[in-house]
This record gives sequence, structure tokens and C-alpha cells, in this order.
Amino acid sequence: MLTDTISEKAKERILSPEMLDLVMSAEEAASMIKSGMTLCTSGFGTGYPKAIPTSLATTKHATDLTLINGAARGEMHLGALATSGVLKKFSGFLYNENARNVVNAGDMQFADYHLGQLSTKIKNGVYGEIDYAIVECCKIKEDGSLVPTLSAGISESIVKYAERILIELNLNVPAEVDGFHDFGVDPYTIIQSPSDRLGVPYIKIDPSKVAGIVITDIPDTDLFYPDIAPIYNQIAGNVVLMLDKEIEQGRIPEQFTFQSGMGVVANCVMLGLMNKGYKGLKMYTEVLSDQALYAIKEGIIEEATTTALDITPLFFDDVFNNLEFYKKHLVLRPVDLTNGVAQIVANELVSMNTAWEADIYGNVNSSHAMGTQMINGLGGSNDFSRNSKISVFTTPSTAKRGLISCIVPMVPHVDSTEHDVDIIATEWGYADLRGKSPKERATAIIENCAHPDYRQQLRDYFDGAVALCGPCQTPHDLSKALSWHQKYLETGSMQQD
Amino acid sequence: MLTDTISEKAKERILSPEMLDLVMSAEEAASMIKSGMTLCTSGFGTGYPKAIPTSLATTKHATDLTLINGAARGEMHLGALATSGVLKKFSGFLYNENARNVVNAGDMQFADYHLGQLSTKIKNGVYGEIDYAIVECCKIKEDGSLVPTLSAGISESIVKYAERILIELNLNVPAEVDGFHDFGVDPYTIIQSPSDRLGVPYIKIDPSKVAGIVITDIPDTDLFYPDIAPIYNQIAGNVVLMLDKEIEQGRIPEQFTFQSGMGVVANCVMLGLMNKGYKGLKMYTEVLSDQALYAIKEGIIEEATTTALDITPLFFDDVFNNLEFYKKHLVLRPVDLTNGVAQIVANELVSMNTAWEADIYGNVNSSHAMGTQMINGLGGSNDFSRNSKISVFTTPSTAKRGLISCIVPMVPHVDSTEHDVDIIATEWGYADLRGKSPKERATAIIENCAHPDYRQQLRDYFDGAVALCGPCQTPHDLSKALSWHQKYLETGSMQQD
Repeated sequence: MLTDTISEKAKERILSPEMLDLVMSAEEAASMIKSGMTLCTSGFGTGYPKAIPTSLATTKHATDLTLINGAARGEMHLGALATSGVLKKFSGFLYNENARNVVNAGDMQFADYHLGQLSTKIKNGVYGEIDYAIVECCKIKEDGSLVPTLSAGISESIVKYAERILIELNLNVPAEVDGFHDFGVDPYTIIQSPSDRLGVPYIKIDPSKVAGIVITDIPDTDLFYPDIAPIYNQIAGNVVLMLDKEIEQGRIPEQFTFQSGMGVVANCVMLGLMNKGYKGLKMYTEVLSDQALYAIKEGIIEEATTTALDITPLFFDDVFNNLEFYKKHLVLRPVDLTNGVAQIVANELVSMNTAWEADIYGNVNSSHAMGTQMINGLGGSNDFSRNSKISVFTTPSTAKRGLISCIVPMVPHVDSTEHDVDIIATEWGYADLRGKSPKERATAIIENCAHPDYRQQLRDYFDGAVALCGPCQTPHDLSKALSWHQKYLETGSMQQD
Repeated sequence: MLTDTISEKAKERILSPEMLDLVMSAEEAASMIKSGMTLCTSGFGTGYPKAIPTSLATTKHATDLTLINGAARGEMHLGALATSGVLKKFSGFLYNENARNVVNAGDMQFADYHLGQLSTKIKNGVYGEIDYAIVECCKIKEDGSLVPTLSAGISESIVKYAERILIELNLNVPAEVDGFHDFGVDPYTIIQSPSDRLGVPYIKIDPSKVAGIVITDIPDTDLFYPDIAPIYNQIAGNVVLMLDKEIEQGRIPEQFTFQSGMGVVANCVMLGLMNKGYKGLKMYTEVLSDQALYAIKEGIIEEATTTALDITPLFFDDVFNNLEFYKKHLVLRPVDLTNGVAQIVANELVSMNTAWEADIYGNVNSSHAMGTQMINGLGGSNDFSRNSKISVFTTPSTAKRGLISCIVPMVPHVDSTEHDVDIIATEWGYADLRGKSPKERATAIIENCAHPDYRQQLRDYFDGAVALCGPCQTPHDLSKALSWHQKYLETGSMQQD
């Protein structure tokens, strides 16, 4: 592309003269990608490349691609690529309904890893050579350094380990985002305080690896939160009760540091904390939602670390209009650091994540429906549950209008083991599993978390298991342990006749 | 006890004059412990208190006790206490046959946690107040500081968090062990090199907390290694083949750093490395065996970190006779550091641990027979598998003369999830699971690891699961997933008719 066809607005954001010569169309950029290649893309919630993936999905000239991505939800990215059939394999957080359907149809292999380890796996050669990193940014500095849009994710790692780099410069995100991020920090560095800035606000790259730059002007518009059903407020209320008690008993400070997963319960907990008058909390988290931004504005959260703003269009405007305010309270870091085991341990987090289901001994399934169908992937849930000071999982006690119990005898897929789950909360209450043996946990979970309609059924299972194999460490009747799921598959209900 | 009844040999090791007044009999010390109290003891493999636990087990004056201990195997410790019936609950690594039987009979609750987190759980109040720490040492310094015997474990934490301290001064271990340990190091410190010493070789205590000192002269004599069956050398051979390939392909350096769990396979791997001419390796591990000591002497291992010498009587003499040599190459650290997630990640370990069984999707059971009966506890296996650069699990492909397949459709208990297992090795070969989807893993595990007698049976299960629920993320037939275990329970064999 001739330099004089580049808009003035774009030129203002490409401060490296050599880089101007690399501006090209999305189609030109996409055409460099050949069948069988391995691609890594930026984006976590938001901030994923949009034009090149859309072109790849449209032309389908390159097939059998492997894609590694942090947690980009985008339809113009993972969704389009997966449904077009050009992807052989995906690794990262699967957070897109169309892509999920492709996985469950067996048309795309999915290697699901802890998000905090994704960069390390790339570095360690788990995916072999990375042909292209494709990253979205809002500004290119004099030396070619990149200012990403509103996520950090694995971007810093992928430009380092990829052979070549393709850039999407998205004019839809203001260049003044510059200053929001913190890169160039050794992954073993302990972040003493969530808003500490220890590195530089841009990603250094080797400019000779840049193969093309595509100018875009596309908003991130994928996220809409569902309406809040009363049950979620009840679950959140129980979590807040637990937090109150921990503070009262001196096990966590009044200004504790917490992580909160995606989803509606997380937002309700935030509301619950507001209503209880909590102030000056710290957040050290993987993704940050609308409600958390609001909590920062209100002083409920004093400072926060996240790898991604996973927010709705309304809040994009709020961020863009209040950039300097948010930069003071909020730092966007690589997911290696937000989900880094050392940082999670050192910050003594209270972590709150969503369980798909939990069993009576405290094992949690975060990813598989009926043990077989992928829902969303593991994400960072076990980064936090495995390493936090207090690891909380929330779930409604039932699903499908009561036909499924989310407290079951045995989960058919385990993402966080019994050793990593401290608290389970449902709308009925919470079970504190800390220091308990499996048998003690069973009582706590059945009596505090299970739906009353399922409690006797669970007690019967537990008693039957003890009768069968004795009061051993973890009583189970293996002929019935998965029978609740089997019954649901056969009859559409877990309820006993 | 009057000071003049203390032997000269003991007096030479109690350099604090005030402490001399606290010397008493084991019975006197034990009598301070009352029913319902919570005790923490030193010891990891070796180095556990012996006289006070024996007295507690004999008099049974105090019951309903809770015991927290790193990983002491001793019959004069956990074994005696558990069988005497005075323990209500135990937490730590369960590594004693008698104690295991008490747990599986339902007579003692067992809360099984990652060993790397045990100190943090004590600090966080998971076990409530700690009434007494009972620690074995070989020397008491002028200011009351303790030089432990041949383990470090959780000793530094328990003297810090317990209300009172009881000391067993064991004259059977030479005072010249002084200088072997490294304490006083912040738990987030990255150990750059396994033999680095960053702290002090003794445990600082608050002398006013010491309630009594008991003089003992009792050797650690519990450990005997079983004879090495040829199958273990075959498994180890496959692990070494894998390591050769990793080095050849540049994914690990020639002088890689490794962790090796307890047991016979670990020893065989060490032998295999010797026979292949490996030199100058680094070990960063939880426990160190006879064979590893031999490897240090031979230069195969240049330097090592461990929290415990878990060695046989023969090698105790070797250590005592060559203390200065071993101090140069080997450091004993708290288990918080040997098993610390930050240190494991930073040292880019190859970890090798024993699986009880693995399933076709790569989930590993380390702790439960048939999903119900406790075997040995989780130990540190998941500290390492979750955080190592390459996480290896080894198991013979079958047990009970072929009647049990150690590769099964679904493990009935998960200690390391599919996300944490990179390599599974049996006597038939190894499966490299890195970057693979569950379906790809199934093929790799069945064809490389399963016993040939069970391969068709496993293929049939997998094919049947795909036929039933489609080629989804993790195909399972829930009506048959645990049927192999159920069949074994009913007929004594997993083999199909």
C-alpha cells in the first residue's frame, strides 16, 4: 500500500517511519498465512485482531491452522475462524458458542490449559514453532513498540516467540490508552500492590519481524450481561456473609484482595460488597467487568490488576472518557502475572469462581457438561483456586428448572480437585471445607449447599456408599457414583422417582 | 529434672543455660498435652519426634487430638499415635500403613492437602490454634535456636505459629549436622541454584514458648527399599528415553533440574541416568533417597535442594561420615520452599512422580485405591505436576498380576487433572500429552502405555463412547466409565470375559 493512501488519523498513530511502509489490507496480510501454520493472537475478552481472522475465515485459503489465544470471545475472531473450518486445533480459553459447537462436533481439537501457563507452554515449545503472532494495538511507537488495546493477555509473549508479527491498528480505541498497561516485568516478580507499575506501558518488539500492519476501526461489541435472576443475588449474599465472618474472625483483613471470575455471580458479589459498605478493597484478577469498574469509581475497590477489561459497549465509553482516572487505580498486565502462581500466593487472594457442578467431597467441574461436552474451557479458575488463600466456588444448587442437581455424588470431570476448594456457595448457604476430611465435607456440602429437594437423595447415596465400602477415606458406590448424570441423559432429570 | 542428672553429652548440645532447666522426661512432657489439643510435629521421612508421641500413645491420657505433620513415616510417631486411638484427625502426608488402616476404618479423619501448602494453611488458621509444636533437633544454640535433624519440613512454621514448643534433642544424630539446613528465607524467594544458601542453618524460636526438652537417643530406622523388579527398570528406561529426546530437541538443557518422588521407579530413573552417562544434573526435590545421595557422590547430581533425607540406615552412616561433602552439594529447606509453586516454576523442573492409575484422557489418581480407600495421601505430587516444566507420571501398566489395568477409562479419584500431566510412562513406553486434545491423548496413552492385554478393551471403550456421545471434547459412556473398577470389586479382575 502506498503511504499516501493511509489516513492521517492512522499516520498519527504509527510513529515509526519504517512501519508506515508495512501498512496493507487485511486480505494481503491474511494471504501470508499458509495451511498448517500455527498462529497466536492477542486478545483477552476484548482486544483481539478482527480483520485478518475475518479474512482468513472468508477466503479459507489456509486450512489446518492451529490457533493459540488467551481468552478472546470475539465472533470476528475465534467464532469466525472455528465455524469456517480452517482451524485444526485451538488452545486457550474457549469462550465462544460457535467455537464450542465446532469442538463438540469433533471438527476442531481443543487443548485446554490453565491460562496462567499459556505463555510458558508457548515458550517451552509445547505447540512447536509459532509462525505468526497477530496482535491488535492502538498505537505504534517510534521504535516499533506496541500499545495494545484494552487487554494484555499473552500478547507480550507471542510477539517474542513468533517468527513473524502481523499488527492490527484499531482506530476505534483511542491512542490515549497508552499508559494503561505494564509490560517488561519478570514473571517471578511479586506485585506488592495491584496498582504498582514496575515495567513499561508498551510491548517491545523486534521490528524486523513485522510482516504487515492492517488499519481497522472496529469496536469490541460482543459482551452483554444477562439479566440478574434473584438466585444470583442469594448466592452472592452467602459469599458476602462468609467474607464478613472471615473478617470478624481476623482471618482476612478488612481491605482484603480478591479475584472474581466472569459472570453474573461475580457481579452480584460486587453489588453485595457495595451494599454492605465495603471500601478500599483490592482486586487482583484475570478479567474485570462493568460492575468492577463501577466499584472502582465508587471507591469500593481502591486498586486493581487485571489482564483484560471484559466490559459492555456502555462501559467502553466510560473508560475512554475517564482514562486518566482509571490509569491511577487499574493496571493491565500479562496473564502470566495476573494468573501467576507466585503472585496469587503472595497476594493472599480470596478467589471467587463459578463451578458448573461440585460433588459431595468438594471436587469441582468447571468445563464439561455431563462429563463429555465442552462448555467454556477451564480458563484461569484453577490458577486461582489452587493458589488463593481462600478459594470460593459458586453455583446455583440446581440447573434446568431443578432437573439437574449441581451438587452430585461424583463429578464426571474434575478441574479443581478436593484439595483446592475451600468454600462452596449456593443460594442455600455455604460450606466451609477447610481442614475437613472428605466425609466431613460431604455433610457440610449436602446440608448447606444442596437444594432441599436433593438432600435426602444425596444423604442416601452417602449412607449407601458407607454401607458398601465402610467409613473409608472417600466412600463411593462406583455402580451409582455417575448414575445421576446417566439418569439425566436417559430421562431428562436427576430426580429420583 | 535436676540439671546434674543430664548427661554430659546432652549438656554439650544445649548451649542455652536457661534451656537446661527445661529438660524433663518424655512422660512429663507428654503430660502437658490435654484432650482435644492440636499438635504439629517435625519430621519429613525422618526427623520426627519419637519419645513424646510414644508416651502419648502409651498413656492415652489425652484423646481427640489433631495432628499436623509434614510427611513423617515413623512407627514411633504417626503409626503409634494413630493405632492408639488418641488422634481424632490428621493432616499432612499419610505415609504409614497402620495409620492408613485407621483412616480407612473411619477411626481418624484425614484432611489431605498439597504438602507445599501445609505451612500456609497453619498460618491461615485452617486448623485453628496450634497448642503444641513438637520438634526433634540435634542441637540447641545459645539463644535457643534449633538445629533440626535430617529433615526440614514444616518445623520452622510450626514453632512460629504454635502456642508452646516441646523439643526432643536426639543424641543419635551428630551435632555436626549443624550447617546442613537453610531457614529464615522468605517463602517467595526464588532459589536460583539448588545449593544456594540464603538464610541461616538453624530455626529461630521464641525461647519463652519452650515448655520442655526431652533427651533421646533413637535412630530413624523405618525405611527399607523393596527389591527392584525388572519392570521398574523398564519404566525408568522409558523416562530416560524421553529425557534424551527432550535434550536432543533443545527443550531442556543437558544439565536439567529435576524432582523425583519417593519409591522404586525414582531410584531406577537415577540408575538409568547414571548408566547413560548423565553428569552435573541439578535436583530440586521434596525428598532425597539413597540413590540420589549416591548420585551426588558420583557427580551425576552436582547440587540438590530437598526438605528431607528419606534414607535407609546404611546411608545415615554415609551422611554422618561425609557431612562436609554433602553440605557443599545439598541443602535442606522448608517444604514451603522445596514444594513452593514459585520456586518450582522458576527452576523449570522436570518432575517425576508415581501414579496409582491414569485414565485415557490423562487424569491421574495418586491417592485412592478403587476411588475409596486411602493409600498414601497426595503428598507433594501435585505441587510438582501442576508447576513443573515437564510433568511426568510413572506407573506399571498393570497391578495385581495383570488383574488390574493401571490405564483405565476414567479414574474414580483425581489428584492431578488432565491439565497437569505432560508425560505418562509405563514399562511399554511413554505418551507425550503436551498440546494434545483429550481425544488425541486417548490414542497416545492407549497405544503407548496400556498393557497390550488391555489395549483392545480400552479402544472398545473409547470407540463406544464416541459412538454414544459423538466425537465431543471428552467422550465417555457414563454407564461404563467406572465399570472396570466395579468389575474388579465384584470379580477380582478388570479383564473382560
